[in-house]
Formats: sequence, structure tokens, C-alpha cells
Amino acid sequence: MTSLLGPGAPVLAFDVGGTDLKSALVAPDGELLGVQRTPTPVQPEHTEKSVLETITRLGAALREQHPSISPEAVGLIAPGVVDDERGLGLFAENLNWHDVPFRDLAEKAFGLPASFTHDVRAAGEAEYRLGPASAYRDALVVTIGTGIAAAIFIDGKPVAGDGYAGELGHSVIAPGGEPCACGGRGCLEAIASAASITRRYNRLTPSPVPGAREVLERARAGDTDAEAVWITALDALGLGLSHATALLAPEVIVLGGGLAQAGDALFNPVRERLYSHLTFHRRPKLMHASIGQNAGLVGAALRARAVLETP
Amino acid sequence: MTSLLGPGAPVLAFDVGGTDLKSALVAPDGELLGVQRTPTPVQPEHTEKSVLETITRLGAALREQHPSISPEAVGLIAPGVVDDERGLGLFAENLNWHDVPFRDLAEKAFGLPASFTHDVRAAGEAEYRLGPASAYRDALVVTIGTGIAAAIFIDGKPVAGDGYAGELGHSVIAPGGEPCACGGRGCLEAIASAASITRRYNRLTPSPVPGAREVLERARAGDTDAEAVWITALDALGLGLSHATALLAPEVIVLGGGLAQAGDALFNPVRERLYSHLTFHRRPKLMHASIGQNAGLVGAALRARAVLETP
Repeated sequence: MTSLLGPGAPVLAFDVGGTDLKSALVAPDGELLGVQRTPTPVQPEHTEKSVLETITRLGAALREQHPSISPEAVGLIAPGVVDDERGLGLFAENLNWHDVPFRDLAEKAFGLPASFTHDVRAAGEAEYRLGPASAYRDALVVTIGTGIAAAIFIDGKPVAGDGYAGELGHSVIAPGGEPCACGGRGCLEAIASAASITRRYNRLTPSPVPGAREVLERARAGDTDAEAVWITALDALGLGLSHATALLAPEVIVLGGGLAQAGDALFNPVRERLYSHLTFHRRPKLMHASIGQNAGLVGAALRARAVLETP
Repeated sequence: MTSLLGPGAPVLAFDVGGTDLKSALVAPDGELLGVQRTPTPVQPEHTEKSVLETITRLGAALREQHPSISPEAVGLIAPGVVDDERGLGLFAENLNWHDVPFRDLAEKAFGLPASFTHDVRAAGEAEYRLGPASAYRDALVVTIGTGIAAAIFIDGKPVAGDGYAGELGHSVIAPGGEPCACGGRGCLEAIASAASITRRYNRLTPSPVPGAREVLERARAGDTDAEAVWITALDALGLGLSHATALLAPEVIVLGGGLAQAGDALFNPVRERLYSHLTFHRRPKLMHASIGQNAGLVGAALRARAVLETP
């Protein structure tokens, strides 16, 4: 990839996901070196311990491979509820940790200043600061993948709500409807995430598919079950984005994540539905995410560099 | 009323509503003097002209009545879409104005520095800064009266979205449902404002009522139509507030406006419904508005004093 980040301090970047953990060494010119995926070492409890062991090992290997680069800070990101300010992982579905002081633990493990941030907010910040949305003051970056979440920027600044803001995926679209992984019902994520689209379709079909891409393909080929599932997802996304628009009036909404790769098949009908719910409201532009699949690592690097710049 | 505002510069305050226009002279000790309601002089077009004539006249009368107080600034607030930063009234339903530079016009009319702000944001700011919600950094102040709108505070600062933020009342709860004054369908305001509750019930009954208070009374007395209308409104409010909670994670939601006078009959069922849609989210406290019916004037005075403090 080209160096979106630009020049700055060299840092280590780690993006802990529910399935994979990504790692890279960020060179002084901003290039991501040695980008690698490792399975996330999920444990029945205290996954933080095995995660810290894994990233320490990966960091050491990256330093060995690039002896001429001395990273000056560590940027770590993870899903769930994250208190950026205090560097705490409060809670993460499936990752089995609670109230873990990841920032302090990473600083100890590496002997370097560290940042610990929410994955969607970090990737969203990369999209917002380094992509075309940077031209706007008020923006949402919505990731639609296995889950759905939003990074919110108001007047150019990220809004974290002590770790609880941006949970667009757990905003109820169909009260009493589809059960959600969070324990609620009818959440946007339970209807319209790539994983939910797949799951909802596979309940209806005798020939299950591996992902949302195939649901869309079958919908286009005239499979009425696939079409119904896809349309419900589009309706829910249009409505959910309209709620966010009424409340916050973003100038731009960036859509990213796996489902956004559907391109116009997603953007055009979602835009149409979103606008159909608006009257005098400010109409947000819908934009494609531009940073690509390493947005999380880039965001982690941005935050790590910011730690060094803070007096 | 007691002097919530506290000591500061004396100012003139005007709160232009869809029906009434309220005016007052704010004394150096913060007391509101000569509070008065005048019918808003609505014209088929350019209502701004008659509004400016009316407030100029009211201001002159206030100065005559209190010759020992020399107001140093003017605080003017109005409904609709208001760009606080540029002091523009972009648009207001029923008031028939477009892109009016109210701040500049008020400065000329009075020969004093002036502020022009949205009525709900100004009243919300008074509630937020001077009421018990001031203990929190992230808050919503929701006014449920003829209409529904929210004043948003994030990290202690108001969020205006260039005049377009906070339109919780025009967030769609029932797609394709009840027509709304904004031209949309199924907006929260069309279901749950005091005016909509009255209108929806009066469509069902042979003996119409003057307001939402009577709908609630009849619901309590066993009128099943009144009960159905009231319950739909509670459901919509709980759901609408849950959307705002998922996105922004406010620590507190203050409910004010005419419908909030229903007290526990509103707060308890709305809280129950709101919380029923939340799982891992941060649960906002629901608080009663505390400033009372002059919150708009107090907010206008706050902003007018702020103009004098800005270098």
C-alpha cells in the first residue's frame, strides 16, 4: 500500500479482532512493514494475557526483521467497549476480558509509550483524517462487517462517550425482532450486518452460503428469499442512518467494512432509503471508505504517534 | 422566579415562538423583569419584519419601565433551523421566513451587540448549565411540547450541526406511518408530541379534548382509545431515546416541555421502555427539567451575556 500516513515517528501497530490479530511495523515514512494476520488467541477467560504474549512476540519479530527501525511507541486497538482516555478494555463480546488496563500493560510489555483505542474509532479516524471525508467537520464512519458500529466526528473531533458512543449497530430498528448477540432484539446489527444477512438467509434456504456476497448474488439471480433478506437489511440501514442524521446532521457518512464492498448495490438503495426519511434535514453525502482493510492498523499508528506528540 | 442566572451584564431577552413571543429585561442580579407574552405577529411572508418591529417596541417599553437598568446586549431565540454561528434564521415552519440575518438585524434595531440562537438549544443550555444536569459532561435535553427536539451536549459543549442537529422529533419511528408537519411520515413528533397525542386521540373520539393532559386523564379512567394513543406515544419516546443513547451514550437525558408535566405517568413508562432496548449500553438517568417555562428567556440571556464576554 502507499504511505497514507506520511512521515512521522516509527511505531508498532496491533489490531486485535475477534478472529484475527493484525500486526505491523510503521516505518518513519509511514509505510506499513511486515503486515501479518495471526489467529487471535481467544481463551475461556483472561484473553488479555495471551493477547499480550502474542503481540510482544510479534513485536520482537518485527524489530528483528527491521533492525534499522526503532519503534518509539505502540498503538493497540481492540473491539468491544473501550475507554480510550483511561486506556481500558471494559468489555468485549467473545474475547472474555473485563476492565483490563491494556495501555499500561502494553507500555510495560514493550517498554515504550502506548495507546489503547477502540478498533472502529481508530479505523474511523484513519478514514476521516486521511480520506476524502477530511474535508468535512461533521462526519460518521460506519463499518458494516461482522458487526456494525460508527465512529462519530463532530466539529472535527472524535466522540467516544467514555467508550459507549457510536453503537449504531445496537440501536433497535425492529423492537422485539431478531435476537442480537448483545442480548437485545431487533438491533440494526442483527438485521443488516454481513454476518446477520448470511445467517438470516441460511435459515431459509436448503443450500446455505458462506457470506453476504453470495446472498446478494442469489438475490440478483431471482432467489426471492435472498431478495427479501437483502431488502430488509437495506431498509434497516437506511432507517438507522436516518436516525443518526436527524440527531447529528453529519455532512458525510462514510460506509466501510465487508458489506460496503457490494458497492453500488449497497450504496444506491441505502442512499435512496435514507433520503426518503429526510425532509428539511441536512442530507449527508454517502462516501465509500478509501483506506482499505488496513484502516485499523493505520488508525492504531495515528494514535500511537499522537501519544508521542502529547506533552 | 429566583435568579437562576446570577449576576452579570443586564440584557434584553426575547423568545419568539410559533404562537407567543416572550420578552424580559434581565437585571444585573439575573432576575427576569417584566416577563410578558405577546402574540407572535405571523405574516403570510417575511414574518421577520413584524417580529423585529414588535421586539424593538417591547424593548423600548422595558427600558422605559426600568430606567435605572441599561441593557448591554440582546438575546433573541426562535424555532426552526437556526445557524447560531452566523446568526441566521434559515427556515421556520409556520413563521414564513428564510435565510434571515436576525443577529445583524437585531444589532441594528437596538444599537447593541446581539445573539441569535435556536429556541430549543437555548432553553436546553439553560437547563444544562443551571440545572442538576450540569454535573454531567454528556447530556441531552429533550423538549416535548407542540413539537419535539433535543439540545445535545457532548463533553460539556453544545452540538448544533450548523443548525440541523438535535431533530429527534423528526427521526422516523414508524416508516410510512402518521404524516408529520415536516412533510415526512412516522416522525417521533407526529406520534408523541403533546399536539400529536391530542390530534390522534381526537380522531378516534366523539368528544374531543383540548390537550394531551386530558388524553392521559381519559386513559387513566379506562378509555381504551385514549390508552392506545398514550401507549403508542410512550413506545415511540422510549424507542427514540434508545436510538440517541446507542449513538451518543448521554449520561443524562432531561425531559422538559408541556408533556413532561405529566410527571411519573410519563417518566416511569418511558424509562422502562428506554431501558428495555439497552443491553451493554450506558444507561442514561432521566431527569425532570428544572428551570420552568422561562427556560427559553434564561437561555437567550445566557447567550446574550456570552456575546459580551467573547473578545
